[in-house]
Amino acid sequence: MHILVTNDDGIQAPGLLALAQAMRQLAGVTVFAPDRNWSASGHVKTLERPIRVTETVLADGTPAYMSDGAPSDCVALPLLGFVEKVDLVVSGINPYSNIGHDVTYSGTVTAAMEAVIAGVPGIAFSLASQDKPANVPTDYSHAGQMAKLVAKQVLEKGLAEGVVLNVNIPYLSAEEIKGIMITRQGLRVYRDALDRRVDPRGRPYYWIGGEAPTGVNEEGTDVGALFAGYVSVTPLQLDLTNYKAMDALKNWTWKA
Amino acid sequence: MHILVTNDDGIQAPGLLALAQAMRQLAGVTVFAPDRNWSASGHVKTLERPIRVTETVLADGTPAYMSDGAPSDCVALPLLGFVEKVDLVVSGINPYSNIGHDVTYSGTVTAAMEAVIAGVPGIAFSLASQDKPANVPTDYSHAGQMAKLVAKQVLEKGLAEGVVLNVNIPYLSAEEIKGIMITRQGLRVYRDALDRRVDPRGRPYYWIGGEAPTGVNEEGTDVGALFAGYVSVTPLQLDLTNYKAMDALKNWTWKA
Repeated sequence: MHILVTNDDGIQAPGLLALAQAMRQLAGVTVFAPDRNWSASGHVKTLERPIRVTETVLADGTPAYMSDGAPSDCVALPLLGFVEKVDLVVSGINPYSNIGHDVTYSGTVTAAMEAVIAGVPGIAFSLASQDKPANVPTDYSHAGQMAKLVAKQVLEKGLAEGVVLNVNIPYLSAEEIKGIMITRQGLRVYRDALDRRVDPRGRPYYWIGGEAPTGVNEEGTDVGALFAGYVSVTPLQLDLTNYKAMDALKNWTWKA
Repeated sequence: MHILVTNDDGIQAPGLLALAQAMRQLAGVTVFAPDRNWSASGHVKTLERPIRVTETVLADGTPAYMSDGAPSDCVALPLLGFVEKVDLVVSGINPYSNIGHDVTYSGTVTAAMEAVIAGVPGIAFSLASQDKPANVPTDYSHAGQMAKLVAKQVLEKGLAEGVVLNVNIPYLSAEEIKGIMITRQGLRVYRDALDRRVDPRGRPYYWIGGEAPTGVNEEGTDVGALFAGYVSVTPLQLDLTNYKAMDALKNWTWKA
């Protein structure tokens, strides 16, 4: 078995190293990640320019590839033949949770989507470290163990066609984590605000500011699982059709 | 009623002008678009840097705003208060179809998603002009009329919460278009191939090459509708949960 490890935070991210080390306990591993941070970059595919690939090493001395492409490119290139055989693609460990509507923005999740579109199982891993004190380095060791547990199951049992797993891990110790919960996508509450400022030359510029997003703490959702101290495992799909809405639309007047 | 018009191809795109002109027949319009092409950029939100907004004019002399943000930023800023009141956000007209898995990559679609996340109805419009001869300028007039027809219905009847409309228009004359079909998201068939080349200094670089994607011509899908000469109207949702897959996952071994 061979696992491709990537992320959207770039090759230097500690979460990538933790994920690579956890996966190496299960199978052969190729690390192929962007040379810079692509957080909140969405699903990008680089078609207008060529992509460079550079050999590098991770902080533990193991070999890795970095590319100037987007996270999805770092999945597409290996699966198109740069790596001989890939049985599973894992993405992360993202330092912040990807829950609710976050999944439509998340480069971590879309890297896993890219794998599934190409017919290879894909899992996105995120750690809710936004809940830890800011002055302490992030500890990925428990998240790595959880990633190993989930990836092992996927390697053994496979995933149904078109299913992407989105895994979020609470920032708790192994003893504090209550278990793993299969969840649905919950609801994010974004609290963005427009912050207009004036530069030293008198011209306006705008920040998307406001407070950090919260979520609706609902049982059975990824948001609720994290609140309750569980690891959330949410199966996502690539079919975005709202089937319920189709019937109502069919009754509209569609004549010119 | 007031309509926000944006796109992912940038302020100079002819499809944006066609959409703005069509919407002006229905309501007041603000055009707010990126200053450059963001195609295949996915769902980007700019949080790490401030955004500039510049007043400009479209090719028909009407006022517009352009920003150095991504398509989603061009929706977020107006809805956060830059524009006083927005009842509908329309995005496009993209010069190529956005069908099947394209919706997870498409900046046109994610701009409409950004509106729906903020609680405002959003519609993405795309024209399948990849089917026309390459040496002829794209004619957006019929697409503009179709966009007007769909937007009028949405202004009158509204959209259910969380629903994004993804509209694809075949590249046909008004007489040739068979009508409007409510569809589900179909299946794209990507035919990407890895194209390794060597630069003048002997170093390799990689193109994501291969043939243009096709689709599975299935009745009831966006792909099938375009093949049959219909405008496809696909309701999308922001909940990506694969509910069927949840039960199978619950039977897995989740003990460490």
